[in-house]
Amino acid sequence: MSYRAPVADMIATMRHVAGLDQLVTDGLAPELDDGVVEAVLDEAAKFATDVIAPLNRVGDKFGSTLKDGVVTTPPGWKDAYTAWAQAGWNALPGPEAYGGQGLPTLLQSACTEMWNSAALAFALGPLLTVGAIEAVHAHGSEYLKETYLAKLVSGEWMGTMNLTEPQAGSDLNALRTKAERQQDGTYRITGQKIFITYGEQDLTANIVHLVLARLPDAPAGTRGISLFLVPKYLVNADGSLGEHNDLRCSGLEHKLGIHASPTCSMAYGDKGGAIGWLIGEENRGLACMFTMMNNARLNVALQGVAIAERAYQQALAFAQERRQGAALDAPKGAAMSPIVVHPDVRRMLMDMRAKTQASRAISYQVAEALDRSHRETDAGKRKAATERAAVLTPVAKAYATDIGIDVASTGVQIHGGMGFIEETGAAQHLRDARICTIYEGTNGIQAIDLVLRKLPLSGGEAVKALIAEMRGIVAQVEGANAPGFGHTAVRLKAAVDALERATEWMLATMGTKQGDALAGATPYLKLFALAQGGTGLAKKALATGSEPDGANDLATARFFAELVVTEAPALELAVTEGAGAVEDAAAVFAA
Amino acid sequence: MSYRAPVADMIATMRHVAGLDQLVTDGLAPELDDGVVEAVLDEAAKFATDVIAPLNRVGDKFGSTLKDGVVTTPPGWKDAYTAWAQAGWNALPGPEAYGGQGLPTLLQSACTEMWNSAALAFALGPLLTVGAIEAVHAHGSEYLKETYLAKLVSGEWMGTMNLTEPQAGSDLNALRTKAERQQDGTYRITGQKIFITYGEQDLTANIVHLVLARLPDAPAGTRGISLFLVPKYLVNADGSLGEHNDLRCSGLEHKLGIHASPTCSMAYGDKGGAIGWLIGEENRGLACMFTMMNNARLNVALQGVAIAERAYQQALAFAQERRQGAALDAPKGAAMSPIVVHPDVRRMLMDMRAKTQASRAISYQVAEALDRSHRETDAGKRKAATERAAVLTPVAKAYATDIGIDVASTGVQIHGGMGFIEETGAAQHLRDARICTIYEGTNGIQAIDLVLRKLPLSGGEAVKALIAEMRGIVAQVEGANAPGFGHTAVRLKAAVDALERATEWMLATMGTKQGDALAGATPYLKLFALAQGGTGLAKKALATGSEPDGANDLATARFFAELVVTEAPALELAVTEGAGAVEDAAAVFAA
Repeated sequence: MSYRAPVADMIATMRHVAGLDQLVTDGLAPELDDGVVEAVLDEAAKFATDVIAPLNRVGDKFGSTLKDGVVTTPPGWKDAYTAWAQAGWNALPGPEAYGGQGLPTLLQSACTEMWNSAALAFALGPLLTVGAIEAVHAHGSEYLKETYLAKLVSGEWMGTMNLTEPQAGSDLNALRTKAERQQDGTYRITGQKIFITYGEQDLTANIVHLVLARLPDAPAGTRGISLFLVPKYLVNADGSLGEHNDLRCSGLEHKLGIHASPTCSMAYGDKGGAIGWLIGEENRGLACMFTMMNNARLNVALQGVAIAERAYQQALAFAQERRQGAALDAPKGAAMSPIVVHPDVRRMLMDMRAKTQASRAISYQVAEALDRSHRETDAGKRKAATERAAVLTPVAKAYATDIGIDVASTGVQIHGGMGFIEETGAAQHLRDARICTIYEGTNGIQAIDLVLRKLPLSGGEAVKALIAEMRGIVAQVEGANAPGFGHTAVRLKAAVDALERATEWMLATMGTKQGDALAGATPYLKLFALAQGGTGLAKKALATGSEPDGANDLATARFFAELVVTEAPALELAVTEGAGAVEDAAAVFAA
Repeated sequence: MSYRAPVADMIATMRHVAGLDQLVTDGLAPELDDGVVEAVLDEAAKFATDVIAPLNRVGDKFGSTLKDGVVTTPPGWKDAYTAWAQAGWNALPGPEAYGGQGLPTLLQSACTEMWNSAALAFALGPLLTVGAIEAVHAHGSEYLKETYLAKLVSGEWMGTMNLTEPQAGSDLNALRTKAERQQDGTYRITGQKIFITYGEQDLTANIVHLVLARLPDAPAGTRGISLFLVPKYLVNADGSLGEHNDLRCSGLEHKLGIHASPTCSMAYGDKGGAIGWLIGEENRGLACMFTMMNNARLNVALQGVAIAERAYQQALAFAQERRQGAALDAPKGAAMSPIVVHPDVRRMLMDMRAKTQASRAISYQVAEALDRSHRETDAGKRKAATERAAVLTPVAKAYATDIGIDVASTGVQIHGGMGFIEETGAAQHLRDARICTIYEGTNGIQAIDLVLRKLPLSGGEAVKALIAEMRGIVAQVEGANAPGFGHTAVRLKAAVDALERATEWMLATMGTKQGDALAGATPYLKLFALAQGGTGLAKKALATGSEPDGANDLATARFFAELVVTEAPALELAVTEGAGAVEDAAAVFAA
């Protein structure tokens, strides 16, 4: 089943939920006037549908393979990547000084969603390149910028992130890869990295590895980690490619999903040390990584939205075709109806749709906040936007990827027995979606980040400002007096009340009983997402009421409020009264 | 990671939740005195752990393959199956007149759980054989019983169920396979069947297919379906195998999971018609199928429990080994701790444990009710037990298989990046678990069955009796005054109240607004499961308080009540006030 980019909902979400119109009015996105958004999204939609989407199943079936150190991507992938980069899509987010278009993150986000809906394993490589570009652009020397940025921005070369080692996953304290200073100012890198996405591939002429490593005299822990740029091929002074660096792909993982994305074990320095260049300052490598963390986490959130959207479209198309059982109101002996008429199937499809659109709402709000954090001229407004993005990023990353799995699984269910057959394609979405809750910081780490680092920003004011905004939307729904909203206002109000109380509890508890706060971190994040996503959908429905799709937006907001947001009181209890039950586990698992 | 059968919890659940002690006291299970239960379970545990469990990953990796109509099961599977059948395990549930042991379903259920934890794809074949035995035993002619039952009971031959056709999945009205009467009293069967589990295999010398088909003069719809026994090899009068019947495996599905279980397309009658024997009466085939439906659905529920248990064990073992991050209370600079000490990991593990044990509680209660439905001498008690089993069967099937997916997915999450790597084995559990919510009636069908067929039994009294029982347990928890229960009593009471109100609403609504009732069927089933499972765990904790494992049972019951059952009010709202939002979907999906 082919993918159709949901351009109308993307634009409605950008305009009415994420505040694109206001961004333009405020003069912060002058490049987006005169139908630029529509034009870019329509072109991107065409490329995603026509070129990338058909590769998704091929990529899953053939996967990337490793032979004698050479990785081969699936049939058709190299051509598609080359065409995609040549069409300028890789350059969309890049800095203008190096050939990029520097378009707002909000617009990029919709495109990112499309590439990932079309083929998550395809879109993943360029996302890592974006991270490499950001790190080099923000912290690299002039030499590194001049040598690498233009090629990375155009997509002629790809970038990678080398963090994980067997003993160091979520905990980077334990990193062991070594870097030794050389007379010429370069470094020699030695060590093993695992789980390196697109660590080796046949799509681009060179690969630019960003590698975390330790200097011999570095302090222990994360304050002793430095970031290095280690190219696959050294680059000559004239920009041509020179010698192969001392690094190789030593293995490829056999994974549950994203088979086409090569997940490599990388060996650095078999022959004495790979040549690397320091990015930023020695021992400040983690700070460089954090520069790009928010964007990378937003991009993974968009992967969750993307896979959910694709799974939803596929399930809906199947449900409109597949006939089993007669409709309730059909005369006796009537022919079988499309299963979309059965109430339980409708419930499942609305659940998929509402969760997908709510996740899109939250994710695009992160994108808009990031744009404001860079573009506001007033320092106070920049700070507010930065904190807003900081708070909403873990919410978007964890919720969108959690529902990515959930929605893809429901998609399998709607297909019945056919869903379990790989040729149908529904199962691939579930397999692919399963990684997004794990990489770029597990969702448990996101919840801890929200509670311990983000909630305290400006003494809790960043979160309180979001809650006040939610209250404003609830008041508008109450005032709208639109029967189509059903019980939306009362359900949303209950969720926002619950979030406010849970927030107070968290702020009061984290200092004194950190263990209790951490036990409630995951339900707190989910509660936040329900309130944020629920009010986001309501905001959209309030704005589109008079448009052709307005009735559908209303129905979607109502469904989310009445059948999803209703979990809020349970989540509040999990936060404020759940720690005891979690602590009991200490004895249960004591062995 | 190896599987260890949770014999202690199985026995505690049998005794204290499912009422094994009372069954023995009532004289209804005389064969289970003097430590028979312990002895059987210990032997089964040994076989499951030593012989079957190591085959699980092999089975996934190699799968079953088809070449020239011959299916080859994975390396080691034939030897293991033969040893398992020879040890008498296949005969455990069989009727004594044909060499079976006729042991109570309750005891069988614990064994069934073990085989499925060890390897779901392995255990699945024998489960279908059980169904074939039941159908032939209950409805077959003396000739069929004499010819087939002993071999099926011993496991020398396997049985299959042939229901599904491409156009007829959940809706059997649409069946097209033809059966034509012959002079000699046999029938000629012609048609295509799909999704036939173990339809062809190399484990047994013969395969006994039960096939649903239509006679030429049959009425339309499900009242025109007959059931036939169609052996792969015809059986001579002396019991030896004769000619190959006119049937073949025409294809094997490429599935998300249970790769070792061959899912066959079957072609009957390429050469004029496969020879079949009628089971029961003409046009009464569905009634024969329903005979075995409750048992089959219980067995799939046990598959959900089984896969959840195995995923839980694997995640717990990983969390006790894997070190990342220091514990909260560790001194600064301390070494990394096993991740099991981190609150969010504890929460996930307790969630897995509690849902698994709650599902076990519900499933074993179904088994006990089935035993009473066969063994009670008083007709009134037999009827009550039959209705109790009827009500709880869809609850067990849907809830246990839903949490099977949920728990297996959390297991992947606890493994972090390693969880996404197939060699780890955590992902296989998720892939395998994904079928259980689909086959043997999708979980949506289970919910409809609960609401439309089971709830009205004895005018709702069957359900009300269960609710009264739950209230009794809540009162005991209230009276226990045990601090370890935390808020268990109040949370369970809220759930039982919600279930009672939702039940009243359902009974009042199903006659007048069936669409509204069906829109709430799935949340109603889940609400039922939370109340039934939550009170089940509490009942166990009440009984084991003074035993060594009592504290763990208490902690598990508390966690389920405080962090899982708390969804009950949201589910009640979904039942009683959710239909409007579901109905809005009609317009959304009208295009």
